[in-house]
Amino acid sequence: MSERPITNIEAYMQDLGRRARESSRALARASTRQKNAALTAIADAIDQQRELITTANQVDLELGRAKGLDAALLDRLELTPGRLDSMIEGLRQIAALPDPVGAITDLDYRPSGIQVGRMRVPLGVVGIIYESRPNVTADAAGLCLKAGNATLLRGGSEAFESNQAIADSIHQGLTAADLPSDAVQVVATTDRAAVGSMITMPEFVDVIIPRGGKGLIERISREARVPVIKHLDGICHVFIDAHADLEKAFAIALNAKTQRYGTCNTMETLLVDEAIAPRILPRLATAYVEQAVELRGCPRTCELITEAHPATDADWDTEYLAPILSIRIVPGLDVAIDHIARHGSAHTDSIVTEDYSHARRFLREVDSSSVMVNASTRFADGFEYGLGAEIGISTDKFHARGPVGLEGLTSVKFVVLGNGEIRT
Amino acid sequence: MSERPITNIEAYMQDLGRRARESSRALARASTRQKNAALTAIADAIDQQRELITTANQVDLELGRAKGLDAALLDRLELTPGRLDSMIEGLRQIAALPDPVGAITDLDYRPSGIQVGRMRVPLGVVGIIYESRPNVTADAAGLCLKAGNATLLRGGSEAFESNQAIADSIHQGLTAADLPSDAVQVVATTDRAAVGSMITMPEFVDVIIPRGGKGLIERISREARVPVIKHLDGICHVFIDAHADLEKAFAIALNAKTQRYGTCNTMETLLVDEAIAPRILPRLATAYVEQAVELRGCPRTCELITEAHPATDADWDTEYLAPILSIRIVPGLDVAIDHIARHGSAHTDSIVTEDYSHARRFLREVDSSSVMVNASTRFADGFEYGLGAEIGISTDKFHARGPVGLEGLTSVKFVVLGNGEIRT
Repeated sequence: MSERPITNIEAYMQDLGRRARESSRALARASTRQKNAALTAIADAIDQQRELITTANQVDLELGRAKGLDAALLDRLELTPGRLDSMIEGLRQIAALPDPVGAITDLDYRPSGIQVGRMRVPLGVVGIIYESRPNVTADAAGLCLKAGNATLLRGGSEAFESNQAIADSIHQGLTAADLPSDAVQVVATTDRAAVGSMITMPEFVDVIIPRGGKGLIERISREARVPVIKHLDGICHVFIDAHADLEKAFAIALNAKTQRYGTCNTMETLLVDEAIAPRILPRLATAYVEQAVELRGCPRTCELITEAHPATDADWDTEYLAPILSIRIVPGLDVAIDHIARHGSAHTDSIVTEDYSHARRFLREVDSSSVMVNASTRFADGFEYGLGAEIGISTDKFHARGPVGLEGLTSVKFVVLGNGEIRT
Repeated sequence: MSERPITNIEAYMQDLGRRARESSRALARASTRQKNAALTAIADAIDQQRELITTANQVDLELGRAKGLDAALLDRLELTPGRLDSMIEGLRQIAALPDPVGAITDLDYRPSGIQVGRMRVPLGVVGIIYESRPNVTADAAGLCLKAGNATLLRGGSEAFESNQAIADSIHQGLTAADLPSDAVQVVATTDRAAVGSMITMPEFVDVIIPRGGKGLIERISREARVPVIKHLDGICHVFIDAHADLEKAFAIALNAKTQRYGTCNTMETLLVDEAIAPRILPRLATAYVEQAVELRGCPRTCELITEAHPATDADWDTEYLAPILSIRIVPGLDVAIDHIARHGSAHTDSIVTEDYSHARRFLREVDSSSVMVNASTRFADGFEYGLGAEIGISTDKFHARGPVGLEGLTSVKFVVLGNGEIRT
């Protein structure tokens, strides 16, 4: 099961694309029962083939260690029994979600006599480009399958053997449910040219979802000839308004930074109204320092709390993904909103306030994919929002925005039911 | 008011873009009352400046005649008193539509205690590229304004003076309503490089909507670095099923072809089940020929009706936009659906049938932006669907599909209302 030698990457990818497009028709027509049977069969196949998958994963891990990959990357690469359980459980959860495809909404009568509504339909073929985590192979394929889409998956080269082993289980599950095994294809080459091909064949791929580092995503966005669902950065803010409840402010500001450091919905900058700063910042600073969070403040922050070092201009535009927090004291709501517009990444921003009009203005005027009042930014997540699962987060405004679940993997078409009506 | 000499088109377009982006913030915040006041003030300004606009239009018409533009193009270019009335009335109708911006839907509680919903928000800056019809200037600007978007408009060079005159009225209306006049900018150069700039500045323009010939739209889609809302072709089908009601079939097949020839939702190919063809086609052929529609048929059609000439392979892929119809007799629903998948343009397709399961399969399996049962394809239209107005039709699946009204000119963001919740 080692990498096949492929001489013509372009032709190989075109062939995968053509097969994905063909199988997408069968998948769009597939019944809910059939798709759920496939998801369950894939979960079963992975369960039965734990040993094969683990062996393949060991090969990747050994190669990775030999190549000197760092510990964090090796950790993401490893398929522990617990992670295999999660993959299997995730597929069963996707099977349990309602099927969005075919649902018709708002079937209203028009004055002409026709009845007009919208039916939810699959997008077609989804291309997923991701880095080292092999569990994405099953998660992404499962979500796309439920939404009626064919999938082309291109994982990181360091997870090559793991991904191929998972692909085998997926194909068994698809076949068992009488769906075309081409409905999920894992690219069987680590050649980087495969990515270039995949993002430039609009005839075969309808949308690309890249998951990974900012560099990868920027390159894909720049070069893709199809739509890309993505977010680049998560520079999230919490603004503690002058009219904040101090207990809520303390809990939210602490949770948003320290619950997890490496996630995109973690707060990177805390904004505090000058009127409340003396009453909340010293207490917060103590709590942050207890958790070994490094504080970088504006000049007024550094005057107020001795724990803070001076922030540089670059700090306000940095996603730390680490126990570092930048803090700025602002004269009020307007400057806070303006700071977020200038330095934010349109991901998730939260205001802590008891003032009705300030809450309302923040919700309306902050132009981010998630805007919150009195809640931790860490809630910006498909599961927490009730989407059932998420394939990624979009900070763009086109098509899908915020956490993207099954609905973001679909489109709609208009349906018109008539009784012989003609236009006059 | 003749064309200003612009030496650096790129810099000029960047400047327009920057001003559009800046004004889009004010527009996104603008209240419904303020946007409606602007729309009404623009309508009033156009009404008061009919003479100026008509004079500018005369200049365009004279230049057009001197250049030898054809009669159809000169007709589209002309702003008759009736067309000015329609522009004014259209703006007043847009003012009367509900404001989509700021509407919050599905604000549901989650197990964590947070309440999650979605708020509708403007897209930002919309670029419209169109050909000769100067009335598009007011229609498109009005719809974008109501949806809270700033607009960059690039009309056809032959309508230059008319568009500039309409732009003056628009600016007066915006100023009267205390909105930035940069919220609607009409590109003041006929240099073609302006289009190239406009579609490649994602930092200033969020989406491009091209309206015009297929060649223009193909070029824009190929070269754009931002999303494009578009349709290329309208190769629409009516399929008369074996179980069709003959009266409905006759009325719909006649209306879909002959009510107007030049519109994108006009039927171009009629598919007829072989079981019903002898009972419906001869009668339809007579009616078509009475209206001087040229018939091009498959071999079996030509055997059945003497009025038909043999169709070539190219006919099935052609949008005639003329009194020409291709007709194919098919053995049943499967071949009809397959024909539409191969030759259609994913615009609008209709089945005429009394068979429940055939209707249901057609609705589900035909992958077009509008699918209909027992209704004329001519209904595929924003007004007929109840969208209030339409900025165009999309045959793509990403973001907006089918007739695009105010909703298609907006996006959503997640709103989270909490009471101090943190993630555990």
